[in-house]
Amino acid sequence: MVTLQKKLLAEVFGTFWLVLGGCGSAVIASAFPDVGIGLLGVALAFGLTVLTMAFAIGHISGCHLNPAVSLGLCVGGRMPSKDLIPYILAQVVGGIAGAGVLYVIASGTAGFDVSAGFASNGYGDLSPGKYSMTAVLVTEVVLTAGFIYVIMGATDERAPAGLAPIAIGLCLTLIHLISIPVSNTSVNPARSLAVAVFAGGGYLAQVWLFWVAPLVGGALGAVLYKVVGDDNC
Amino acid sequence: MVTLQKKLLAEVFGTFWLVLGGCGSAVIASAFPDVGIGLLGVALAFGLTVLTMAFAIGHISGCHLNPAVSLGLCVGGRMPSKDLIPYILAQVVGGIAGAGVLYVIASGTAGFDVSAGFASNGYGDLSPGKYSMTAVLVTEVVLTAGFIYVIMGATDERAPAGLAPIAIGLCLTLIHLISIPVSNTSVNPARSLAVAVFAGGGYLAQVWLFWVAPLVGGALGAVLYKVVGDDNC
Amino acid sequence: MVTLQKKLLAEVFGTFWLVLGGCGSAVIASAFPDVGIGLLGVALAFGLTVLTMAFAIGHISGCHLNPAVSLGLCVGGRMPSKDLIPYILAQVVGGIAGAGVLYVIASGTAGFDVSAGFASNGYGDLSPGKYSMTAVLVTEVVLTAGFIYVIMGATDERAPAGLAPIAIGLCLTLIHLISIPVSNTSVNPARSLAVAVFAGGGYLAQVWLFWVAPLVGGALGAVLYKVVGDDNC
Amino acid sequence: MVTLQKKLLAEVFGTFWLVLGGCGSAVIASAFPDVGIGLLGVALAFGLTVLTMAFAIGHISGCHLNPAVSLGLCVGGRMPSKDLIPYILAQVVGGIAGAGVLYVIASGTAGFDVSAGFASNGYGDLSPGKYSMTAVLVTEVVLTAGFIYVIMGATDERAPAGLAPIAIGLCLTLIHLISIPVSNTSVNPARSLAVAVFAGGGYLAQVWLFWVAPLVGGALGAVLYKVVGDDNC
Repeated sequence: MVTLQKKLLAEVFGTFWLVLGGCGSAVIASAFPDVGIGLLGVALAFGLTVLTMAFAIGHISGCHLNPAVSLGLCVGGRMPSKDLIPYILAQVVGGIAGAGVLYVIASGTAGFDVSAGFASNGYGDLSPGKYSMTAVLVTEVVLTAGFIYVIMGATDERAPAGLAPIAIGLCLTLIHLISIPVSNTSVNPARSLAVAVFAGGGYLAQVWLFWVAPLVGGALGAVLYKVVGDDNC
Repeated sequence: MVTLQKKLLAEVFGTFWLVLGGCGSAVIASAFPDVGIGLLGVALAFGLTVLTMAFAIGHISGCHLNPAVSLGLCVGGRMPSKDLIPYILAQVVGGIAGAGVLYVIASGTAGFDVSAGFASNGYGDLSPGKYSMTAVLVTEVVLTAGFIYVIMGATDERAPAGLAPIAIGLCLTLIHLISIPVSNTSVNPARSLAVAVFAGGGYLAQVWLFWVAPLVGGALGAVLYKVVGDDNC
Repeated sequence: MVTLQKKLLAEVFGTFWLVLGGCGSAVIASAFPDVGIGLLGVALAFGLTVLTMAFAIGHISGCHLNPAVSLGLCVGGRMPSKDLIPYILAQVVGGIAGAGVLYVIASGTAGFDVSAGFASNGYGDLSPGKYSMTAVLVTEVVLTAGFIYVIMGATDERAPAGLAPIAIGLCLTLIHLISIPVSNTSVNPARSLAVAVFAGGGYLAQVWLFWVAPLVGGALGAVLYKVVGDDNC
Repeated sequence: MVTLQKKLLAEVFGTFWLVLGGCGSAVIASAFPDVGIGLLGVALAFGLTVLTMAFAIGHISGCHLNPAVSLGLCVGGRMPSKDLIPYILAQVVGGIAGAGVLYVIASGTAGFDVSAGFASNGYGDLSPGKYSMTAVLVTEVVLTAGFIYVIMGATDERAPAGLAPIAIGLCLTLIHLISIPVSNTSVNPARSLAVAVFAGGGYLAQVWLFWVAPLVGGALGAVLYKVVGDDNC
């Protein structure tokens, strides 16, 4: 039996890894001259943070690394609701720590400017492709719903055993392949807050949307899967 | 025992996901300035929509998301023919819904023009690389045949258990890596119709080919696998 | 018990798929303006032809699709030597058929010139990066040896069951990531011959090297794995 | 029972493969004109060297290919400490052999200049993005810690059986997606030494950091996983 304390430690380091790896690839390597990894590389990096951690700590904490995932799994009946707030706090702490280490690294070269965004999410003028608040809201709700739907399905006892980390990690890659130009892709409130704390200004003022929309989407995705996947719904 | 109603709901949301994710990555992220995901990213996105959904709902509906797959599996004896028409209708409904949500998102920024194609398939002047109708027809028949051949083989009871979602999803990625310049890659009539409804004009007028060729290819691929894979053929 | 006839049919269509998919991605999509898949996309496509077919027909023919693989598995004691020549003939036939269909598709747009290479392998002036014959020879021997070494290891009964298609397919991707600029990457005599027949001229005159080096490498890799992996060696 | 001699042979050829494949993709294909694989392709290549070898020789030597991994697994109690020095020597020998074969290949075309770096790691003026020594040190310690943490977790007996090669290989890809611009990414002292021996000059003078930081990180990651993952810690 894994204690709650061990689970929370696993969530702290896992979310640290997600923010350092995903946002780190965006800040450091995405637009590197001539040979940069582009949005495709960033999408792959975000997915691989989850894939790798799901194999490493799935058996400890379930590897949520994301308040919207934790809420969705509560709604879906896969997690006791008394653990929800502790999980979210652990994810927020880990995410901010990851952003902090990324800040130390990124500021180790000339020309780094944290206020240029630091991989923060945004809408309107702060959207990479200048997408409206409505478009961003729809995108974040729908994609988070799909994410939790896939998580619920891939961890269903009828799904192939042991392969959920691949399904879930690559689902996050897919989500980024669609939506980085729209919102810089959140679907994860802890990831959004972590970097917005450093970027500040307008990014921090917009972070509310990247809590509301993913949480709504997470709950919605869990309900959708229950309708489709539970024999008694 | 999963009811037909649950299976159809799963096909609706699954095909929604395929069109939103695959066509969405093409419309939104493919040609984003400097760091766009290109055809490689689009190919990966299409494949990952199927990979993720196959893990999520393979145990519910089989996760076809594609009339050519459903027809092929009927021909191959893997699906009762009475379910064929309901499956295809569910796929069409889900695909159009996915294209609708994509339209809402994509129109949330300046400069969006649905009549520029909206990730529709086409031949001749509407082929990305101006390929002839014959070339497009051959491409769609042969690649759909290969797709169903891989689906039949990877879900054969002698194949490694549980890994078919990886084989099938990445097969769709492979197909896109070859043929986006030719036809913008269909191999899926529901995907083609869904976006052509919005793009209209010449794209809608050409959509017949992207029903005929994939359906012919799907049946052909199933027959080919039966010849190679069934001891009694 | 699968008959030899079924195995050979499986090898024919599998090698057809390898050449159509791998060489097709190179000819059609690699250098497509602005959004082309580049060498990375071609490397992925080659690997995915093998990954998908290994899941589809691994249980039928073993899915060699490559004379160097068949020879290596003979040397390694994994295949009866009486099947070697029939396998190689089936691979050659399937490869040429794949190149033929690719020719039909590729010639369906303006500006196609088969004599520009048609994804053929080459050394010296016909090497993409003008690498010398010696460099190409070393590259093809060493990488084919590594390929067969991975195939022997990943299909060892002590390796994880069922995952060899992933290991082997992605090994072919890795090999292409290294060596396309050197030799356009062969490691497969059937693939080299198939497109050289169409490209003709100097490409056909150089095809001998892409039989000799991969066959030597295949045998070498099998011996290396036996030394490392067999308790009695 | 596999003898130590066989294990060491497996580590020699495995580390040969890692350096030839990872550094080879960087030297040969990364910046190939117009269609080069970029940092994304190099990141994938490094990861696939480990993924393929882990399937091929995981059952023989454990497939460390990296002194920091061997040290971490000693600290984590997964490997007898008496094997540590022999493993590290085998990795160094194999890595230098891989760099030697790469030198033979790369020098087979005009314009090759080994002193331009030969995929060596570096800090300050020798960092690809001119990152400071501190930034490089932090990056290498933290990412190696995460690497060993994932290795410990993915090979935990509670993790899905047989899939660790995928988790570990793609973790190395992720690490490269983040940090090539910072340090050219080491997290592996044998890889760093192997190419620095050929590049010489400043690269060889800086190689100490790429022994110290990964070894510290490796030990740290093992301790971190024990705290989170062991019930008795």
